[in-house]
Amino acid sequence: MAGSAPPAAVRVAVLGCGNVGQALVELLVGDGAALAARSGVRLELGGVAVADPGRARAGVPPGLLTGDAKALVADPGIDLVVELIGGLEPARTLVEAALESGKAVVTANKALLAAHGAQLAGFAAEQGVDLLYEAAVGGAIPVIRPLRESLAGERVRRVMGIVNGTTNFILTLMADEGVGYEAALAEAQRLGLAERDPTADVEGHDAAAKAAILAGLAFRCDVVDADVPRQGITGVPAVDVAFASRLGYVVKLLAVAEAVGEGLAVSVHPALVPLGHPLASVRGSFNAVFIEGDACGELMLYGRGAGGRPTASAVLGDIIDAAHNRLTGGAAPAPARARARLVPAEDVSSAYYLDVEVADRPGVLAAVATVFGHHGVSIRSMEQQGMGDEARLVFLTHRARHGDVQATIAELLELSAVRHVGGVLRMVTDEDPAALGAGGGA
Amino acid sequence: MAGSAPPAAVRVAVLGCGNVGQALVELLVGDGAALAARSGVRLELGGVAVADPGRARAGVPPGLLTGDAKALVADPGIDLVVELIGGLEPARTLVEAALESGKAVVTANKALLAAHGAQLAGFAAEQGVDLLYEAAVGGAIPVIRPLRESLAGERVRRVMGIVNGTTNFILTLMADEGVGYEAALAEAQRLGLAERDPTADVEGHDAAAKAAILAGLAFRCDVVDADVPRQGITGVPAVDVAFASRLGYVVKLLAVAEAVGEGLAVSVHPALVPLGHPLASVRGSFNAVFIEGDACGELMLYGRGAGGRPTASAVLGDIIDAAHNRLTGGAAPAPARARARLVPAEDVSSAYYLDVEVADRPGVLAAVATVFGHHGVSIRSMEQQGMGDEARLVFLTHRARHGDVQATIAELLELSAVRHVGGVLRMVTDEDPAALGAGGGA
Repeated sequence: MAGSAPPAAVRVAVLGCGNVGQALVELLVGDGAALAARSGVRLELGGVAVADPGRARAGVPPGLLTGDAKALVADPGIDLVVELIGGLEPARTLVEAALESGKAVVTANKALLAAHGAQLAGFAAEQGVDLLYEAAVGGAIPVIRPLRESLAGERVRRVMGIVNGTTNFILTLMADEGVGYEAALAEAQRLGLAERDPTADVEGHDAAAKAAILAGLAFRCDVVDADVPRQGITGVPAVDVAFASRLGYVVKLLAVAEAVGEGLAVSVHPALVPLGHPLASVRGSFNAVFIEGDACGELMLYGRGAGGRPTASAVLGDIIDAAHNRLTGGAAPAPARARARLVPAEDVSSAYYLDVEVADRPGVLAAVATVFGHHGVSIRSMEQQGMGDEARLVFLTHRARHGDVQATIAELLELSAVRHVGGVLRMVTDEDPAALGAGGGA
Repeated sequence: MAGSAPPAAVRVAVLGCGNVGQALVELLVGDGAALAARSGVRLELGGVAVADPGRARAGVPPGLLTGDAKALVADPGIDLVVELIGGLEPARTLVEAALESGKAVVTANKALLAAHGAQLAGFAAEQGVDLLYEAAVGGAIPVIRPLRESLAGERVRRVMGIVNGTTNFILTLMADEGVGYEAALAEAQRLGLAERDPTADVEGHDAAAKAAILAGLAFRCDVVDADVPRQGITGVPAVDVAFASRLGYVVKLLAVAEAVGEGLAVSVHPALVPLGHPLASVRGSFNAVFIEGDACGELMLYGRGAGGRPTASAVLGDIIDAAHNRLTGGAAPAPARARARLVPAEDVSSAYYLDVEVADRPGVLAAVATVFGHHGVSIRSMEQQGMGDEARLVFLTHRARHGDVQATIAELLELSAVRHVGGVLRMVTDEDPAALGAGGGA
């Protein structure tokens, strides 16, 4: 009606003002006019909730700071709530309150989404408002929107993500410099890329939350992080990173979701990635998500997976999207999700790298190979590394069930000639996961 | 109101039934029920317009074929028109008719968008309907939606795309096998990756259309393909591809749009990309778009840039998006666009690779270096390749104005010691284009 009137403003509340919150406020306040011109929507910052509103924050107008997040969310003048507190509580209660009062929510909170995403999406759908979370996986990288919208019609086969920058930095350093895990972790900590207590990163908890979110979107089902089997990088021996490199592979911590028959397998584990694979070129603290679909073929989305400004960039894209939807009356698509039919970890098959430390004497290979045969694990190649007390047999297998590989290892350890089974690492291959069952081959 | 009624169907007309059209119909018809479950919208194929409706098409219900595209577009039973005819006419007339009758349009037609995109976007905005074109750049790769939505608030600095699979295949082959352009082209033709008349690909016309589309989206302005300076790959000597490789670079045909001061520079040209750069790992017929923004940092979107099924995948994503918007009453954001302030090609600066064939005698380097100095082109490194009659000086320059480099070459050719200036190729560097003017340095 009001043809040339300026567009109505959408009033935004920001909960939490750490790195990401501060970078976001800077983009909203510092760049307001240019931002409105670029985006076509006018955003107004209505308030910033922090634990200590008395402490000044650079770039944040002091009058907008409040210690009462609950009241800010309830303020009828607020249209859209950005949750950047992280963790489960009070984030969950505040997000629920916002959605239930008909406000759109943008969040970067992977833990919250991986634990309660389905329920929150349900609240949003009931109210017909947006719940957007591009920043929860892969920081600035457009991953969530492509999966939800661009690939809405795609039959996705497999998603593999390097979604944790800390572990990718550590593994890159181990490969480049030949150092061990402890030394690489110390360097990451020195550079501020790893926390003092690195458990959430190095044990794969962070990646598991992201795997659950990616799996849910790619396969239109509900997956929670507690359902994701997890193997971190603390047990990856430097010697196996070096062997992998000699064989033409690089070790990466992957969050994987793949169709297995009518089911879905989701996991986090370190894996050997062939050097020619696009994921192999994702180095240092960069992230990437590699998607394989029936029609789209292979896609990769690459960029900065963390950091205040990159993450704020993704949050801002979501804010503009939700604001646009609020002004035009639409909402982002939220297709119905089925219950996930998760395939048990032991039934998932993969090619494997196994590093078996053995006594260097005749007949050992035959004994070891016989054990592989017992369990239907087919050997693709074998190479002896080192001699005498240092001797190890490095096996690459064809695709085999995880359960069969575990049984193989258990029986190998009963052989007197086998001293230790070191690195047991899955391998990324082109063999179609759906087409191959357990075992097979020679 | 009708709580549990099945969702209304959106009726889709497809214009054109080549590779992409046929793959799309297969996805729509063959996979309908699963598609509705995955996407949350029900799509019905209302008709397929082709030049020869008498000829059967595998997978296309014969009753749906029609020779009258105009009547199909005008059919009030059709909600959404998919234009896959390509070229300017009759595609333009049909798309206009569809938009003006309030139908959403999905198209993969880069030529149409690069020539008349602003006008068509205007029609769509007037009617409040969607005009979506994810498949027009980068095939299956989500590029358009990330630029339009995810990066809606981002201050983009530079976009560089490998957006033509044919030329990337040819350049990859030249680098890997050391063959010349003609032999690599012949191989691409043999494999069906290049047309019999390869002009549109190898002279950069296809990439220029995509550059115009990317520039318009990334910088919120109107750019037409006729405004894009274009240099193809026919003049790239095999010897320079080999030298580049030895220096740690790979030659790629890039579509570039970058902020230069308050203006915008758009062009298509072959360039030296450092081997460590993510674009360097884009091989064969794959495509990728690399985006640098103020807040997001570096992003890359990678995948299949052509082919029936990958392109149909992107078209299908757009159809679902437009159908969702139709059912909920929204429309994709279409922010106002400014007139582009294009910087003339000669005022754009870049680092350069120059291959100067010279007489191999004392004093030549001094004479040549003096000419560079005359024009304020600063030399970063020089290496002599070959001896005697084969002698050439390979220069890498600091960032310099294109006009100054051209003037340097003109004066070099006046020197008696200079026989020929071979490869003149821009280089991708990290030097901030906005921060550096012409010349500078030693």
